[in-house]
Amino acid sequence: MPGINKFAKLTSVESALQALLNLCSPIGRTVKVDLEYADGRVVSRDVIAPRDNPHYDVCQVDGYAVRACDTAGCQGGRVLRPAAGGQVGPGTYVQVHTGGALPEGADAVVRMEDTDPADGGRLFYNEVKAGENVLARGSILRKGDVACAAGVQLKPTDIALLAKLGLTGVEVFERPRVLIVPTGDELVERGKEPGPGTVNESNGIMCFLFIKRYGGKPALYDIVRDDPSMIAEALKMGSRYDLIVTTGGTSVGVRDRMEEVVSRMGKVLVHGVALKPGRPMGIGYVESGDRRTPIVFLPGLTEACASTMLTFVVPAIRKLGHYPPLHPRREKARLTRGLPGFPGANAFHKLYIEGGMATPVPLMGGAPRPGDYVYAIVPESIEKYEEGEEVETVYLE
Amino acid sequence: MPGINKFAKLTSVESALQALLNLCSPIGRTVKVDLEYADGRVVSRDVIAPRDNPHYDVCQVDGYAVRACDTAGCQGGRVLRPAAGGQVGPGTYVQVHTGGALPEGADAVVRMEDTDPADGGRLFYNEVKAGENVLARGSILRKGDVACAAGVQLKPTDIALLAKLGLTGVEVFERPRVLIVPTGDELVERGKEPGPGTVNESNGIMCFLFIKRYGGKPALYDIVRDDPSMIAEALKMGSRYDLIVTTGGTSVGVRDRMEEVVSRMGKVLVHGVALKPGRPMGIGYVESGDRRTPIVFLPGLTEACASTMLTFVVPAIRKLGHYPPLHPRREKARLTRGLPGFPGANAFHKLYIEGGMATPVPLMGGAPRPGDYVYAIVPESIEKYEEGEEVETVYLE
Repeated sequence: MPGINKFAKLTSVESALQALLNLCSPIGRTVKVDLEYADGRVVSRDVIAPRDNPHYDVCQVDGYAVRACDTAGCQGGRVLRPAAGGQVGPGTYVQVHTGGALPEGADAVVRMEDTDPADGGRLFYNEVKAGENVLARGSILRKGDVACAAGVQLKPTDIALLAKLGLTGVEVFERPRVLIVPTGDELVERGKEPGPGTVNESNGIMCFLFIKRYGGKPALYDIVRDDPSMIAEALKMGSRYDLIVTTGGTSVGVRDRMEEVVSRMGKVLVHGVALKPGRPMGIGYVESGDRRTPIVFLPGLTEACASTMLTFVVPAIRKLGHYPPLHPRREKARLTRGLPGFPGANAFHKLYIEGGMATPVPLMGGAPRPGDYVYAIVPESIEKYEEGEEVETVYLE
Repeated sequence: MPGINKFAKLTSVESALQALLNLCSPIGRTVKVDLEYADGRVVSRDVIAPRDNPHYDVCQVDGYAVRACDTAGCQGGRVLRPAAGGQVGPGTYVQVHTGGALPEGADAVVRMEDTDPADGGRLFYNEVKAGENVLARGSILRKGDVACAAGVQLKPTDIALLAKLGLTGVEVFERPRVLIVPTGDELVERGKEPGPGTVNESNGIMCFLFIKRYGGKPALYDIVRDDPSMIAEALKMGSRYDLIVTTGGTSVGVRDRMEEVVSRMGKVLVHGVALKPGRPMGIGYVESGDRRTPIVFLPGLTEACASTMLTFVVPAIRKLGHYPPLHPRREKARLTRGLPGFPGANAFHKLYIEGGMATPVPLMGGAPRPGDYVYAIVPESIEKYEEGEEVETVYLE
């Protein structure tokens, strides 16, 4: 029977990931979004400051605007008089608030607490230099400066800066559009009662949530039977997307038709990766006219679907969407039990963290309880991590 | 002038945070959400498995279902015959697929690749034990078991498990509702052209995005003037929320009326914290009938608004919403320049990371460029971190 031993030779995780990323060109489509929706989005072209920031000379403390020269040598106490008409002249001051405009004629501000009331005005004890406690117009940004460079993934403080500059929206890259195609004769829709041999579809919703969480715009196709023409129809629809992710049908059984269909519609570059669970995964593209749409076909086993989603699809989405690398927390933890490797493949494990100790748990199927779940990989070169050994864990999901 | 030196005595960050968290009781309101919207939400009561998982005996490989006893001592090769009618009897097999139901009469599955075609059936070479390559009904969860415990913050793999069990939704805690009240005579609406002395409101949108990002449900009130009765009106509205966050009016100037209003409507517990920027921050509650709504009043200076938001409001939202602690990545980085402390307060800094080196940048106002921005705190006990020193940084935002 052809193909039975095809997974005897597996592509390394690194090579497979590289093959996928080579297929994924960062998307060029952009969209202008209101600032309320800009958090986490990636700026698609330099934002130019439409005005100086600040756009006036700003008093930085509550106090009194003065001419700095009037405070020279005033430490013993010097009385200045309130200015008339809001304009500061020799020997006078105007009361100001933090954030207010520096009155005409003044070049510095003295803090309220460095003065005292006095007959006919206030006593000043602190010498200030010109510009002291003043934020000069344009000192942060000049009109025409780049206020936020293309490629920045916006955070709330960045967006506050844009709002300060008078902007209400920003041009960002569209989120990569990903079509998820769950396949399998055994699948029944979510919420319907399955019989023996059939199961509720769950990989699709899981992929949907992963893709959304990491910056993609997922669309979930209906369940597709293990029928090449129906799969082909779905993939044809998928060629309008930036990435196609299918689940199921990737192994070597008679109902595993994914490789055959992808080969016919484009090319399979990788089938079988050194990741356990996850070995039957494939990578390729489908062609439609001039357009090549990358496709990742994930195994139907939910554990394998999750491990390959995190290992391959998430980085692909990050690249497509111009996103910077993720920064999941990584921590050492000591194993309460041994963690087996797998000959010829990286073994992907889930661990439950409690008091710095890591207990291996099933990738799926345990009943989750509150607390921290992390992931750890046993490289193929290692037979087993021993109980009590310290391993690197990552807060991946 | 009363109050001028009130910030001479500052509450420590730890004490202030504790005071705030003491005011914040995790909310009791729950809501049933569809699984598509359940990512990141916190389960409010144990989810009980409505059926066994798996709900039938599952073949775990593509191959042949047999009676294990028929494979005893078969290593030299033994021919079994195809069973008639899908039911496995002595000396017979039924072809099965991964995920399919184990046929009646069988108690194990032999992998396809461990057999060969033979006259009248297939040759079997591998002895299997009863239960081998079979996932028994209910072996993951029994009907009635806790499938997901209250308090779990759902992740995509958890949600896949719920979908597998036939569920389409899950009961979760509501997100904490937070009313954001930006105050200040100097504020003009987003996008409107400000004159000297007035600025576009930006703290409100920043708080909105922070609160949303960390699990709250923010609502942004209109800009409120520095007028006690207008502030009071806004806070009265805020008493219907789980938390009120105001910006501006927290210092000691004549336009800083926040403390006065909160004192009148409830109680101020903390005013002035040992965080720079951020010192004029306050914590208290407003009363309305029996109900006490915690309020955090943040400084109007955007840098201080951001530092206090991250230090105080984010943990408050996490507690209100039953969320587990955040796990931001923490890393050591070497300073390219000295990082000044501040006498009597923790100094909150932003750093730009490049090749493992950390360069201090303004909290606001730099023009962000692509790359990693992190935060670091110089504790009040330290005068300065020196150039070349290694400091702990945190990917906080």
